[in-house]
Amino acid sequence: MYNLEEELINAIKKRTVKRVLLQFPNGLRKYAFKLAKKIEEEANVEAIISADPCYGACDLAIEELKHVNADLLIHYGHAKIPNLKFENIIFIEARSKINVEQAVLKAAEIFKNEEKIGLLTTIQHIDFLTKAKTILENIGKKVYIGNPGEKTIYKGQILGCDLTAAKDIADKVEGFIVISGGNFHGLGVQLTTGKKTVVADPFLNEARVLDELVKATIRKRWIQISRFSECKNIGVLLILKSGQLNLKLAEKMKNELEKKKRKSILICVREVTPENLNSFIDVEAFVNTGCPRIPIEDQLKFEKPILNPEEALIGLGVIPWENYGKTLLEKNIWKLF
Amino acid sequence: MYNLEEELINAIKKRTVKRVLLQFPNGLRKYAFKLAKKIEEEANVEAIISADPCYGACDLAIEELKHVNADLLIHYGHAKIPNLKFENIIFIEARSKINVEQAVLKAAEIFKNEEKIGLLTTIQHIDFLTKAKTILENIGKKVYIGNPGEKTIYKGQILGCDLTAAKDIADKVEGFIVISGGNFHGLGVQLTTGKKTVVADPFLNEARVLDELVKATIRKRWIQISRFSECKNIGVLLILKSGQLNLKLAEKMKNELEKKKRKSILICVREVTPENLNSFIDVEAFVNTGCPRIPIEDQLKFEKPILNPEEALIGLGVIPWENYGKTLLEKNIWKLF
Repeated sequence: MYNLEEELINAIKKRTVKRVLLQFPNGLRKYAFKLAKKIEEEANVEAIISADPCYGACDLAIEELKHVNADLLIHYGHAKIPNLKFENIIFIEARSKINVEQAVLKAAEIFKNEEKIGLLTTIQHIDFLTKAKTILENIGKKVYIGNPGEKTIYKGQILGCDLTAAKDIADKVEGFIVISGGNFHGLGVQLTTGKKTVVADPFLNEARVLDELVKATIRKRWIQISRFSECKNIGVLLILKSGQLNLKLAEKMKNELEKKKRKSILICVREVTPENLNSFIDVEAFVNTGCPRIPIEDQLKFEKPILNPEEALIGLGVIPWENYGKTLLEKNIWKLF
Repeated sequence: MYNLEEELINAIKKRTVKRVLLQFPNGLRKYAFKLAKKIEEEANVEAIISADPCYGACDLAIEELKHVNADLLIHYGHAKIPNLKFENIIFIEARSKINVEQAVLKAAEIFKNEEKIGLLTTIQHIDFLTKAKTILENIGKKVYIGNPGEKTIYKGQILGCDLTAAKDIADKVEGFIVISGGNFHGLGVQLTTGKKTVVADPFLNEARVLDELVKATIRKRWIQISRFSECKNIGVLLILKSGQLNLKLAEKMKNELEKKKRKSILICVREVTPENLNSFIDVEAFVNTGCPRIPIEDQLKFEKPILNPEEALIGLGVIPWENYGKTLLEKNIWKLF
């Protein structure tokens, strides 16, 4: 991050701005105060830091910009989501310098019998994608890198909610290597493509097979979908984040629930937390029309079933359970009904 | 609450609205789903419930109204704050039907040697204020009820952050009786007036003296102010709620900190929670320019000192500690420096 500071300060100086708003994901907030102070001193502007949660570029502090009367948003960590058209934002992508070689070789070892490998990563390791491709090619693999989707900008780049770069090449490959810390992105790949996925983790220098995690996840989703299918009073969550709000989908979902004799109400919320949902004691289950990874990652935090729209359609008998992977994260899900 | 439903439904029908947004404090959310469904069915509109935290009428879901494309906000629980000028809001005040007589008589017993009593309450018990006055007069007390302030609308009504009705008569009375559940409102009264305050709690039918709580609170604030006075890097919190945002105060606070050789940055946030503040590891203390009760009620949740502006001014040596009560919740605090 630090080598971008001079560039950023010059970019601010070139504009006629008086006040800038800085937005950081949690992991980078430890640098926030010093960075803001440096910007104030060197770019001669007032810097304000946004402290509300921020998990992605779907959650840009656009409203805050107006409230605090700032001219420019500097969003740290995430890459721009190209289909969100906002002006006055500078994206400072968090690019890691950590070498991926060992982790990729360990992942390749797991795929020793497969030849055609799809290669994917997050914005953090995107600089190493070409190097990883060469490493795999040098040991005789045929490497495929898919095109970006609506929410990504680089070939091979994936988000928790945009796995286009995986789906794009899923038919051609025998498995995927996902360069990333944690299993979050790899889980999405195997769930939505059905193809064996190995995480190459450059922080731990290890490779992990996700078969068991995928099976456990599907089992847990099945339990929640079953519970949901018995519920009568359903809250449809409308998420108030710049890149997540989808009133049309929420209303279609509500109509579908009512056609199936459920009672349903739209509930709008910024943060989907147990604190915000638990007090609605007569709502038996929720359908979340925002971030599709919340039900999958955070279900255990919630007392009641919280489902994605496509999971709710399974629970209502509108689409078959067998299609779970194909329909999960399907952005045109509302065209299905 | 329920006897207002028909009136509310008629009020909605009279307007040309298609979609209404309902906002509830946590305690009333148990009724939210049924109430929303009833409004949908009887007023022929779409109802959306806001699920983000809401602790007062200083936190109106004005932005949400635009985001979900609703025409009207129905805000449950709190009374209108008259100096916030927003249109398209219906306030449904939560008025309790619980009798206050026993609790008031027990409070009067504590004040058996005093004659001149100030009487205060919250919106919840405002219907019983006249009755309580009569009860006290019947046993020979002289009862004073102060005028409302900028944020309140009824005589004798107080908020956690507007104790004008107490200050208005503090010089005339020997003590205060505050009709309310919990000690929150009474604590504010004794802290800011210095007068002995007794809570008449109609839910528990008991009366409580607050002397010990007030002493403990002042001791705890003194500790935090002392800790703050040693801190070099200070975050000034700018709260993004409709009735709390005060950019001018935050900037004045920041300037004052820098004059006193502290480094300071403005930090904007919707919810002042440990989750949102803890990740700023190089910020040593916070000054909160929003809800003044957060530092007093919630300090223990936070690792670092979190102070009100007037407390920060004490910590910086700008105003004397002896004036703590008089300066606390002083809305024109920024005129002091």
